[in-house]
Amino acid sequence: MTDARPIDASLSAALSGGRPRTVAIVGATGAVGAEMLKCLETSSFLTGRLRAFASERSVGRRLPFRDGEIELEALSERAFEGVDVALFASEADISKTYGEIALRSGAVVIDNSSAFRMDPSVPLVVPEVNGDLITAGQRLYANPNCVAAIMAVALWPLHEAAGVRRIIASTYQAASGAGAAAMEELEVSTRAYLAGETYEPKVLPHPYAFNLFSHNTAIGPEGYNGEEMKVIAEMRKIMRLPELRVGVTCIRVPVLRAHAMSVTVEFERPLAVEAARELLSGAPGLRLVDDRARNHFPMPVECSGRNEVLVGRIREDLSDPTGRSLALFISGDQLLKGAALNAVQIAERLI
Amino acid sequence: MTDARPIDASLSAALSGGRPRTVAIVGATGAVGAEMLKCLETSSFLTGRLRAFASERSVGRRLPFRDGEIELEALSERAFEGVDVALFASEADISKTYGEIALRSGAVVIDNSSAFRMDPSVPLVVPEVNGDLITAGQRLYANPNCVAAIMAVALWPLHEAAGVRRIIASTYQAASGAGAAAMEELEVSTRAYLAGETYEPKVLPHPYAFNLFSHNTAIGPEGYNGEEMKVIAEMRKIMRLPELRVGVTCIRVPVLRAHAMSVTVEFERPLAVEAARELLSGAPGLRLVDDRARNHFPMPVECSGRNEVLVGRIREDLSDPTGRSLALFISGDQLLKGAALNAVQIAERLI
Repeated sequence: MTDARPIDASLSAALSGGRPRTVAIVGATGAVGAEMLKCLETSSFLTGRLRAFASERSVGRRLPFRDGEIELEALSERAFEGVDVALFASEADISKTYGEIALRSGAVVIDNSSAFRMDPSVPLVVPEVNGDLITAGQRLYANPNCVAAIMAVALWPLHEAAGVRRIIASTYQAASGAGAAAMEELEVSTRAYLAGETYEPKVLPHPYAFNLFSHNTAIGPEGYNGEEMKVIAEMRKIMRLPELRVGVTCIRVPVLRAHAMSVTVEFERPLAVEAARELLSGAPGLRLVDDRARNHFPMPVECSGRNEVLVGRIREDLSDPTGRSLALFISGDQLLKGAALNAVQIAERLI
Repeated sequence: MTDARPIDASLSAALSGGRPRTVAIVGATGAVGAEMLKCLETSSFLTGRLRAFASERSVGRRLPFRDGEIELEALSERAFEGVDVALFASEADISKTYGEIALRSGAVVIDNSSAFRMDPSVPLVVPEVNGDLITAGQRLYANPNCVAAIMAVALWPLHEAAGVRRIIASTYQAASGAGAAAMEELEVSTRAYLAGETYEPKVLPHPYAFNLFSHNTAIGPEGYNGEEMKVIAEMRKIMRLPELRVGVTCIRVPVLRAHAMSVTVEFERPLAVEAARELLSGAPGLRLVDDRARNHFPMPVECSGRNEVLVGRIREDLSDPTGRSLALFISGDQLLKGAALNAVQIAERLI
């Protein structure tokens, strides 16, 4: 689907460290783009120049980066010349148009939108789960939906041990998934509520202060919204289980930037609670938070701004008499593992 | 278990309207007690005097009621003399001690605590579900846990049609379930967060501003917290399905006074989405909110302060290939159907 030249000698040299790597961020002023910038501040992957692209109204503005500043540039047909790896934190239409251009310019593209996720020729990658799909010949990668990325990293160690057969999940999704403007709306509308003032929602379709609502994506013929259909399709693709049975309800809650999810998992083979806890403890990308005595389990406030996905409340699903089902609660930063961090982790594995 | 005289002639006369009915509220200054007072303002059940009991520090304070005022009284051995129906909105220990005293005094007792709920001799009543248990000979009734009451009223019409076999639920529970002080803490801590100030949690064990956490009741040996075990046991008792399979995860979210829950239900017999929608539309105590085109489904903000439980997002559970499972989303006012209103509805059925 993409008019992409194979990786050339110059890009090869950059990826192998033979010359400095130039990285671009598309959508650098958005909620995810800003986090990509932060991730790259400290990433040893960025050895050369960082270029940042944004919409017309931000072009020319300067952002602090490492010891200096970078200037926001406009996207164009020739924007990606000299770029080795382009991270897209843009809407799907921008990713489609300029992703193709970046590929034609010879860059590796890692796209956070839904534009390429279900394309069979494009790997949908969570490095801890299917990092083996990051190969020298591949120049386009899709970064998963935030719920799918966070859920997949938490379920993978259990799947490897006992085989995931069915997932029933309900999400508690933060404002950040709808962008920086939604985070702002949550704060502004909450402030208004507390001051006894009325606030008319502008970004999200329903009042957000001390309220929650079904995810704001269109409902399809089966009654599932766009977000839920993404989670179902992407979990299957990431876990390479095309027949995986997934039921999911996506709910937006008044939390700023970390998602949570309550997940009931049925396995092919019995899996004891203690064994599951052992498997999750120390697994890559995870932190076990499962202290029953202190009633301390995964919470958005404890993973906001942090790389690890928190997992806990591991217990038998009392509704499954066969003993093959476990319930767990997961929380991860939507902007990091759910988006920017995972994209940068894919880039780091290119080397 | 209770030293209760049978209903005497005087109480009979009161219940049948032969003389004015005297009603008492125990715990009238709490979040639930205050709502009981509001429900009784307009209830035709209260034809006589209202008496309101509170803890020592509130005794003597006056509350506006109907066209006048009532004075808060202290609980004592003789407090319930002349009381026909006593509504308890107190903690379980107070309900146990003074519930017995009220019964000995000849009153009908409707208790909102967990003190009597699982006692086999005490009906646990949601009038729309098992109102037939309200009988002339019975003087003690238990009012269910808020999640169980709201879930039961929404699932009952579906159960009657297709037989509920298994429930997997995740809750989104409001501050009000932990009392007026928790509601206050949510507001105060959110205000502090928005002002950039730190706030040390006092009522709940974790930060509440823009955060969520596992329900703050102690975790038992199976890994389920007290709230979850109540939901499981009470759903079985209310629906008279002792073998009902229930898995539930109870989560506290930053919402003030209406609970929500994402529920996946497996039935004995196939039940089509359209049939379920028809059954729920116009069922007692429910309002169907299921507008896929406008993305409008049950939300806490739309049922806060309202009697009806909202139900919607009715769709097939895509993880069940047998087509016997539906997913739905429910929201109901925790203080009303989840507590005060249900208790007053039990009283109203006594007549």
